[in-house]
Amino acid sequence: MRDRNAAATFAVVVYDGVEPIDIGGTIGVLSMARRVLPNLEALTVAEAHGPVRLAGGLTVLADVDFASLPPCDQLIVCGGPGWRRETTNAAMLAFLRRQAPMRLASVCTGGLILAAAGVLDGRPATTRRLAVGAEDAAPLDLLNGLAPTARPRPAVVVDAGVVTGGGVSLAIDATLYLIGRLYGERVRDEIAAAIEYDRAFASNKSALGHFRQTDDTIVSN
Amino acid sequence: MRDRNAAATFAVVVYDGVEPIDIGGTIGVLSMARRVLPNLEALTVAEAHGPVRLAGGLTVLADVDFASLPPCDQLIVCGGPGWRRETTNAAMLAFLRRQAPMRLASVCTGGLILAAAGVLDGRPATTRRLAVGAEDAAPLDLLNGLAPTARPRPAVVVDAGVVTGGGVSLAIDATLYLIGRLYGERVRDEIAAAIEYDRAFASNKSALGHFRQTDDTIVSN
Repeated sequence: MRDRNAAATFAVVVYDGVEPIDIGGTIGVLSMARRVLPNLEALTVAEAHGPVRLAGGLTVLADVDFASLPPCDQLIVCGGPGWRRETTNAAMLAFLRRQAPMRLASVCTGGLILAAAGVLDGRPATTRRLAVGAEDAAPLDLLNGLAPTARPRPAVVVDAGVVTGGGVSLAIDATLYLIGRLYGERVRDEIAAAIEYDRAFASNKSALGHFRQTDDTIVSN
Repeated sequence: MRDRNAAATFAVVVYDGVEPIDIGGTIGVLSMARRVLPNLEALTVAEAHGPVRLAGGLTVLADVDFASLPPCDQLIVCGGPGWRRETTNAAMLAFLRRQAPMRLASVCTGGLILAAAGVLDGRPATTRRLAVGAEDAAPLDLLNGLAPTARPRPAVVVDAGVVTGGGVSLAIDATLYLIGRLYGERVRDEIAAAIEYDRAFASNKSALGHFRQTDDTIVSN
């Protein structure tokens, strides 16, 4: 477990059509975490450096492109309606396949991009479990279409080396989980309380569960 | 109460040093809400159109400047460490004073900017109740320094015409509250469930409360 003064770098993978709540649940949580983890760095990475147009119309500027990403402790792939295009984007898939699986994570429908990249093959994994609005299928039900040997399960977070998180606001829970995996649960819980998410974190975990793979067994964590 | 096909425009007020979780909790919730409220529009407004550098380093592009904001049903002022500078920014304060109080809202330390603008005078109000990291005071304890006749209270949301929300992730709750005020609680709760925030919304309300001013009385809402 790292000391709270230890350095770590998280990269958040964005693309056109990411939901802005996924930016808030990843970059936003990491920004608040820096108040107690002073050497935690967070940056955004996209296929091209510069403007990325989010769902709903907000534009953010990606810090770096795939080729110029510095070494990272953790990459988190965001979700949002742009996920469909990314599952056939060769540059995105090649970028994800170059990463060490232990350093990969997703929030919401970002899990479907990891599925398309093949990095969920044989692993338990989650993504958004509910269809929203005009959708005719829940993303979780689409996972095996992209990764036939992945084992989908509803959850807040599934840690099978590759960490996948559940839908929408559960991006916050998944990012807190990743911070806890690196810096310990005590710091994680301190950050959850500071951002007024301690009640949500506990009630989500109780309702949907955190799961971790140990050898071939999935345990509630 | 508006029909779910009725139009509404929300503007989210941003400035250098907004916390990105406040973007997720406002613009992010509104973007997801559009999946069931097809004519809900959301845009970002800043003193100048274009790049705004958030806390933690992410840059977003503000859609419009103060002078070119179209008529809006609701303005929400974000929080973040940039709030201190904004409390003495004449352009920001004049902009807020030009708005009808019933259309003003804040999340997190955005409430301190409303306080400085004088729009919380005589009203109950909230803001982040916890000090985080190196802060030597909780924002809620600073409210009366900026608005001596405001009545600070810890809460998820205080609706005194001007709606103020609590800290950090409670931006999600405050935005859901505002959607409910306009479109009704049934649609609000549907959106909360769709974004997996129904458990958080209920537990936060139970722990910290939603309060509404009716005449001179504050009632739990």
